[in-house]
Amino acid sequence: MPSHAASIARDPFALAAHFAETRRLSEALVAPLSEADVTLQSMEDASPAKWHLAHTTWFWETFLLRDHLDSYRLFDESWPFIFNSYYEAEGERINRFSRGMLSRPTLAQVIEWRAIVDEAMEPLFGREELVPLIELGIAHEQQHQELLLTDIKHAFFQNPLGPAMWSEPVQGATKVEDGWHSYPGGVARIGFQADSFAFDNEGPAHRVLLQPFELSAHLVTNREWAEFMEDGGYRTASLWLSDGWAWVRENGIAAPLYWSDDRHFTHCGWQDRNPAAPVTHISYFEADAFATWSGNRLPTEFEWEAIARGQEGEEPAHDPEGGNQLDAAVPPLPRGERGLFGDCWQFTRSAYLPYPRFRPASGAVGEYNGKFMSGQFVLKGASCATVRGHSRASYRNFFYPHQRWQFTGLRLARDI
Amino acid sequence: MPSHAASIARDPFALAAHFAETRRLSEALVAPLSEADVTLQSMEDASPAKWHLAHTTWFWETFLLRDHLDSYRLFDESWPFIFNSYYEAEGERINRFSRGMLSRPTLAQVIEWRAIVDEAMEPLFGREELVPLIELGIAHEQQHQELLLTDIKHAFFQNPLGPAMWSEPVQGATKVEDGWHSYPGGVARIGFQADSFAFDNEGPAHRVLLQPFELSAHLVTNREWAEFMEDGGYRTASLWLSDGWAWVRENGIAAPLYWSDDRHFTHCGWQDRNPAAPVTHISYFEADAFATWSGNRLPTEFEWEAIARGQEGEEPAHDPEGGNQLDAAVPPLPRGERGLFGDCWQFTRSAYLPYPRFRPASGAVGEYNGKFMSGQFVLKGASCATVRGHSRASYRNFFYPHQRWQFTGLRLARDI
Amino acid sequence: MPSHAASIARDPFALAAHFAETRRLSEALVAPLSEADVTLQSMEDASPAKWHLAHTTWFWETFLLRDHLDSYRLFDESWPFIFNSYYEAEGERINRFSRGMLSRPTLAQVIEWRAIVDEAMEPLFGREELVPLIELGIAHEQQHQELLLTDIKHAFFQNPLGPAMWSEPVQGATKVEDGWHSYPGGVARIGFQADSFAFDNEGPAHRVLLQPFELSAHLVTNREWAEFMEDGGYRTASLWLSDGWAWVRENGIAAPLYWSDDRHFTHCGWQDRNPAAPVTHISYFEADAFATWSGNRLPTEFEWEAIARGQEGEEPAHDPEGGNQLDAAVPPLPRGERGLFGDCWQFTRSAYLPYPRFRPASGAVGEYNGKFMSGQFVLKGASCATVRGHSRASYRNFFYPHQRWQFTGLRLARDI
Amino acid sequence: MPSHAASIARDPFALAAHFAETRRLSEALVAPLSEADVTLQSMEDASPAKWHLAHTTWFWETFLLRDHLDSYRLFDESWPFIFNSYYEAEGERINRFSRGMLSRPTLAQVIEWRAIVDEAMEPLFGREELVPLIELGIAHEQQHQELLLTDIKHAFFQNPLGPAMWSEPVQGATKVEDGWHSYPGGVARIGFQADSFAFDNEGPAHRVLLQPFELSAHLVTNREWAEFMEDGGYRTASLWLSDGWAWVRENGIAAPLYWSDDRHFTHCGWQDRNPAAPVTHISYFEADAFATWSGNRLPTEFEWEAIARGQEGEEPAHDPEGGNQLDAAVPPLPRGERGLFGDCWQFTRSAYLPYPRFRPASGAVGEYNGKFMSGQFVLKGASCATVRGHSRASYRNFFYPHQRWQFTGLRLARDI
Repeated sequence: MPSHAASIARDPFALAAHFAETRRLSEALVAPLSEADVTLQSMEDASPAKWHLAHTTWFWETFLLRDHLDSYRLFDESWPFIFNSYYEAEGERINRFSRGMLSRPTLAQVIEWRAIVDEAMEPLFGREELVPLIELGIAHEQQHQELLLTDIKHAFFQNPLGPAMWSEPVQGATKVEDGWHSYPGGVARIGFQADSFAFDNEGPAHRVLLQPFELSAHLVTNREWAEFMEDGGYRTASLWLSDGWAWVRENGIAAPLYWSDDRHFTHCGWQDRNPAAPVTHISYFEADAFATWSGNRLPTEFEWEAIARGQEGEEPAHDPEGGNQLDAAVPPLPRGERGLFGDCWQFTRSAYLPYPRFRPASGAVGEYNGKFMSGQFVLKGASCATVRGHSRASYRNFFYPHQRWQFTGLRLARDI
Repeated sequence: MPSHAASIARDPFALAAHFAETRRLSEALVAPLSEADVTLQSMEDASPAKWHLAHTTWFWETFLLRDHLDSYRLFDESWPFIFNSYYEAEGERINRFSRGMLSRPTLAQVIEWRAIVDEAMEPLFGREELVPLIELGIAHEQQHQELLLTDIKHAFFQNPLGPAMWSEPVQGATKVEDGWHSYPGGVARIGFQADSFAFDNEGPAHRVLLQPFELSAHLVTNREWAEFMEDGGYRTASLWLSDGWAWVRENGIAAPLYWSDDRHFTHCGWQDRNPAAPVTHISYFEADAFATWSGNRLPTEFEWEAIARGQEGEEPAHDPEGGNQLDAAVPPLPRGERGLFGDCWQFTRSAYLPYPRFRPASGAVGEYNGKFMSGQFVLKGASCATVRGHSRASYRNFFYPHQRWQFTGLRLARDI
Repeated sequence: MPSHAASIARDPFALAAHFAETRRLSEALVAPLSEADVTLQSMEDASPAKWHLAHTTWFWETFLLRDHLDSYRLFDESWPFIFNSYYEAEGERINRFSRGMLSRPTLAQVIEWRAIVDEAMEPLFGREELVPLIELGIAHEQQHQELLLTDIKHAFFQNPLGPAMWSEPVQGATKVEDGWHSYPGGVARIGFQADSFAFDNEGPAHRVLLQPFELSAHLVTNREWAEFMEDGGYRTASLWLSDGWAWVRENGIAAPLYWSDDRHFTHCGWQDRNPAAPVTHISYFEADAFATWSGNRLPTEFEWEAIARGQEGEEPAHDPEGGNQLDAAVPPLPRGERGLFGDCWQFTRSAYLPYPRFRPASGAVGEYNGKFMSGQFVLKGASCATVRGHSRASYRNFFYPHQRWQFTGLRLARDI
Repeated sequence: MPSHAASIARDPFALAAHFAETRRLSEALVAPLSEADVTLQSMEDASPAKWHLAHTTWFWETFLLRDHLDSYRLFDESWPFIFNSYYEAEGERINRFSRGMLSRPTLAQVIEWRAIVDEAMEPLFGREELVPLIELGIAHEQQHQELLLTDIKHAFFQNPLGPAMWSEPVQGATKVEDGWHSYPGGVARIGFQADSFAFDNEGPAHRVLLQPFELSAHLVTNREWAEFMEDGGYRTASLWLSDGWAWVRENGIAAPLYWSDDRHFTHCGWQDRNPAAPVTHISYFEADAFATWSGNRLPTEFEWEAIARGQEGEEPAHDPEGGNQLDAAVPPLPRGERGLFGDCWQFTRSAYLPYPRFRPASGAVGEYNGKFMSGQFVLKGASCATVRGHSRASYRNFFYPHQRWQFTGLRLARDI
C-alpha cells in the first residue's frame, strides 16, 4: 500500500463526502473551458484538461471498481489504453505526446463516464480495507487538479491571443514578512507517522541529524528576482550549476517562465506583475543560482520540515497571480494557505530519493512514487493551485531541475 | 500576378456564385467535426481544420479587402499574425507547429468572420482588374479544402479509437482499364495558355522535345502494391533511391500510410481495403521503388501532360476510400473525376522547377509558388479530395519525396 | 556498365600509365599530412583522407581483382566492411560517421595495401572487356582526390589553430572577363556520345529545346558577393527559396563557408581574400538568392552545356585560394583549367535527374549514380581541386542544396 | 581552496617525486598508442588521449606557473583555448565535441610542452602555500589517467577491427568472498578530516544517523549478471526506475556495455568473459534494477563509508579485464587494490549533493566539484583503472545515471 494508514478506520459518510467534493471540484475547474480548450496538449510534460478528468476516473475504475467490485463492467474496453498514464503493470498505453490528439471521446462522454463511476463507487466507502486506496484516489485526483490548472495555463500561453480562463483578478495588497526562522541543530524527526493518509514516499518516519540553520520567513519576491536579473544573474556563469548554465544557454533563458517586461501570463490572461508577490515559475537551476547570488542557499527538505513542524501557519499567503478573486469565482477553488504552505512550491536542495527502509507498495499502485527516484528534486509546501488540506509538513513534491511550469518558487536558508 | 488571365473579362455574377459555392463548401466540410476536432494539428505538415477556414478567409481579407476596398476594417488586428501561413512579405507569423494551440478564437468566431468577409466581398466582383486575384483566391481555398480533408484524416488516425468523420461507405464495384496510352515522340506543347485561370507555375507555355513512350491506362492498384510487398519490395535496397532507402530504414516503413493488415484508415474510420482500387498515400520514394520493381518507370510531368492533352476523360475514376457515398452524404463534396483526373495525384519523376522565362508575381502573392522550387517533385492529375473543376492538364501539384499524407498514387510509364 | 565506352579499344600501356599516375597522385596528396590528420572526419558528409586512400583501393580490389582475377586473395577479409562506401549490393558496411574512429589500420598499412593492389592490377590492363571498368576506377579515384582535398580542408577548419596543409601561396593577379556568351535558342545536343569514357549519368545523348539566353563570361567574384552581403542579402527573405530561408535562419548563415571578416580559410591556413577571385563555398540556396538579387538567374544544365560545346577554353582560370604555387609545390596537383572549367563548380537550376532512356548499369557499380537522383542539383564545370582531364562538357556533378564544403560558385544567366 | 589541507606542511622532495611519478605515468599510458589513436574522440563524454595529456599540463601551467611564477611565459598563447575543459572563469573554450578535431598540435609537441612545464615547476615545490594546489594538480592528473584509459577503450570499441592496446592478458583465478559486513546503526562520522589531501566535496566532515544494515562482502559478478539477464531483467519494466526504463527502450539496452555473447571488449581487444569477475560498465539504472531484482538495494554513500572506515582491505581484488599482466607490462599502471577499493567503482543510491556547510573554493579551481551537484549519483571505492593511493573512504566519484563507460559495478546492501 502506498499509504501508511491502512489499518485506520474512517467514517464512511465523511469519506464519501470528501470523494464527492473532490470529484465535483475537478469538473468545476473545466467549466470556463471549451471543448477545444480541454483537448489542448502544449508539451510532453503537460496533459489536456479532458485527459485529467478521464485519467482520474480511470484510476477509480481500475483500482477500485474493477479490482474490488465484482459486478462492475468497464464503461468502454478501449479507454484504459488511452487514459492510463504511466502504470506499466496496467499494460500498454498511448504515447505521452499523443494525448493532445484525443478530440474523441468528447468532454460530454467523459463527464458521463465520471457520473457512472461516481455512482458505482457508492458501495465501496463502507469497506474498511479499501479506505487507504480511496484516500489515495482522492489525493491522486487532487494532484491532477493542480496539474490541470498548470497545464491549461501553459497551453493558453502558447496562443498569441493570450486567452483568459477567468476574468480580471482583484489586485490585493501583499505584506511581506521579514526575518528568519532559526533552528538550533540536533536530531529532527522526519516523515509521516500520524493516523491519517500520506503517500508512501513520505515514510517511513525516521530521524536525521541537522546542523544549526535559519530559514527565511518570506518567499523570494518578484522585486528581488528583478534585482537578480538587473545584476546580470542570467549572464553570470559562476552563479549556476553546470547543467543549469547549459540549460540557460541552449534555451535562451533570461527570465522566469511567463514573464514579459513588467507583465506576466496568468489564468486571467496577461496581467501586471506585483513586485511584492512571490516569484513563481522558476526552475531548480534558477532557484539555486538566485540563492548563490544572494549569498545564501536552498534549504534541505529536512530543514524545511523541521521548521514546518514547529511553525506552520505564521506567514500570510500571497497569490502570485495577484488576488483572491479565484475563491469568489469558483468558490472551493484550490489556492494558497497561510504560512509555509501556499503561494508556491519551494525548491529544496534535496534530491528525491527513498527514505531509509522505504518499500513501494505491491501491485500497480506501487508505481506511484518510487520509480521516479532519480534526477529530481524535492519541493515542499503547497502552491496557490493546491487544494486546501492536500499538503502537510511531510509532503514531498518532486520535479526535474529544468521544469518550471508548476507554481514553483523559493525560500532561502543559511548556516548559522 | 500569379495568374495568366489578367486581361480576361468575367461575368461578375458567375464569379460571385463560384465564390459563394466555394466558401459554402469549406464550411460544409467541417459540419461533421466538433470544436475539438477542428483544433487538432497532428504534425508540422498539417493544419487544423479551423485554421484552414480562417487562413482562407485571411487571404480574402488581406489581398482583396484590405488592399482594394478602402472602407474595409480588419475584423481583428491580431488575427493576421495567427492565420498567415508562409507569406514573408506579410510580416511575422505564428510558428507552424503552434497552430494546434489555437483553441481560441472559437469555430463560431471564425464562421462569423467568414460571413463578414463574404459580405464585404460583394462590391469587388464587378471590378475587372480584380478578377485574376479573385480566381486565385477561389483556387487557393479549393486547395485548402483538399488539405483540410487530408489533415483531419491524419489527425483522426492518431487517435487509437479511430474515429470516423462520415458513416460507413457503400462499397462500389471497380473496373480497371488495361493497356497503355502511346505517344510517338516529338515536340509537345507544355503549360497553360487558355483564357481562364491558372497558377503562375503552370506557365509560361513552351515546347519540349519528347521521345516515344507509353503511359499506363490505369493507376497502380492495392492488389499490385500487395504483390510488391510480398515480393520483399520494402526490404530490397536495390529498388530504392539512396535517400528513399534511408527513409525506409529510419522510419521503419513497410506499407503505405494508413495500411494495417487488410484494412486501411479512411474518413469513415477503419475499413476493408478494396484490392482493385488505386493505391494511395505513398511517397515518391515508394512510387519510384515500385516502378523500378515493375520494370517500368514514372513518367515525366511533360509526358503526362502530353497524354492528358489528347486523352482526358477516358478512364473511370475509383474512389480509394471505397464508394461514392460521399457524393450522397455531402453532395458537392470534392471527389474523383473520370480519366487521368481523380482518385489520386500521380507522381512524376520531374522535379518541381520553374518553366523557362518563369517570373513570380510581384508582391506577397508572388510567394505562392516560386519559392518552393527546390527538393520537391511534381504530381499531376487530381485526387478524390480535389474539388471538381480545380485541376487541368497543366496543373502542377508538388510535394517532398517523403510526404504521403495526401491522396498520392502512381501511374507507370515505359520507353518504346 | 556505367560507362558508354564499352566497345572502344585502348592502348594497354597508356591505360596502365594513367592508372599509375592517378594512384601516385592520391598518395602525393597526403604527403603533408600526419597520421592523425589523415584520420580526421569532421562531419557525416566528409571522410578521412586515409579512408579515401583505402576506399579507392577497395574499389580496385573488389570490382577488378576479386571479380576478374581468379588467383587474387583479399588483402584482409575484414576491410571491405570498413572501406565500402555506399554499395548496398556489396553487403553491410560501417556507419558513415564512424569512419573517423579508424585509427587502425595505420596509414602505412593502407599504403602497403595500395602497393599490393597496384601490382596485382598488372595483368588486367590488356583485357579489353575490362577497359571501361578500369576507366571508371580511375575516374572514381579522381573524384575521391577532390573529396580528399575538400574534406581535409573542412577538418582543419574545425581546429581553432587553423593549421595549413601547404605553405603560403603566391598571390597572382586575376583578370576578370566581362560580357556574356549568347545562345540564339533552338535544339541543342545534350549528353555524352564520344568514343571515350564518361559516367552513365551523362547519357544517353539526346536533344532538348532551348530558348534564347545568355551566360555570363565570368564567375561571380568575392567582391560581388560582398556587395550582396552589404545590401542585406542574407537578411532579405524575398530573395530566398523557402527551404533556403529556413536553412539561413536555423544555421545562422551570414557569409560563405570559410569566410571571416576579410579573410578566408584555405589549404594554406587563414589568408586574405582576393576580391577579384571567384566566390567559392556557397550553397545552392545562396547561389539562387544571389542570382535573384542580381536580377538574373542560374542557368539550366542544358544551357551551360550548350555554351560549353561551342566555347570551351576562353576564360582564364582564377585560383580561389589565390595563386598557382600548388602546381609548383606538388607538381601534378589538381587545379583550375582555362575557360568554363576550373576555379569552381557552377550551380545550375537543374535538378539531378535521369536523362531520357537512362538505365543504371547492372551489378554493384550500377549504384554509382542513379540512386542519388532525388533532392540534388547539377553543377557543371570543374574546380581548382579537380584533376586536369577529369571533367568535360557533359559532366554532371551533384550536391544537395545546402551543401557547400566543395569549391562551389556560380555563373549567372539571363533570358534574351 | 578545494583542498582541506591548506595549512599542512609537506616534504618538498617527496612532493616533487610524487609529481614526477604522476607525470611519467601519464606518458607511459600512451606509449602503445599511435598519433592517430591519441587523437580519437568517440563521444561527447570522452576526450582524446592527447587531450588528456595536454589538459593536465594546462592545469599546471595555468593555476601554478601562470598564477605563481612571475618569470613564466605561456608555451603557446592559443593553447589555453583548446585545452581548458570546463573552467568558465578561465574564459572561452573549444566546443567539447571538437576535441577530436585536434590533429594539431602533434603528440610530440604536447610531450615537449609537458617537459617544459615539468621543469618550470621545480621552484614551486618548496613553497608551502602552494602545497594544496600542487596536491590538487596531482589528484587531477590521476583522475585524467583513469579517464584516458576508459576513453581510449571506448574509442577502440567503435572500430570494427577491435584493436588492442595491450597484448593478451594472463587469466588469473578469482576467489569470491561470501557474506555481508554488518553495521548496527547509530551516528557515523562522514567526510574527510585527516591532515592530508582531499577534494573539497569530501567535506566538511560531519555526522549522520544510520539505521542497521548490511553491505555485501563481494561485488556482483558477471555470472550473477548473466542470471539477471536470463531471468528477463532487461525486459521487466517493474524492476526499473522510470527514467531507466525509458533509457533501456530508447537505446535498445540488453547487456552491459562491451558485452557480446560470452565475450567482452577490453584494452586487450575482445576476450572471453570471466564469470567470477565483477561485472563492470553498467549504468546506475542497471545497478538499481539488478538490486531490485535481487531483493536487496544499493547502499547509500554514508553506509558504504561507514563500513569502509572499519573494514578496508579485506577483500581480494579482481581485475575485470581478467589478469594482472597490466602491472607487468606498464609497471606502475593503475589497477585494483584489495578490499572495498579496486576492480570497479560502486554505485550508491545517494545523489551527488553538497555536504552541510560545503563551500566551493574561490577562484577557478572552485569550479572543480560543486557545480556538478545536480542529476548525478555518488560512486565509492576505486576501479582497476584508478592509480594506487588516489582513493580513500571519503572519496566521492560521480556520474549521471545513464553513463557506463567507466569501470562501474555494484555491491549490494540490505536492511536488518
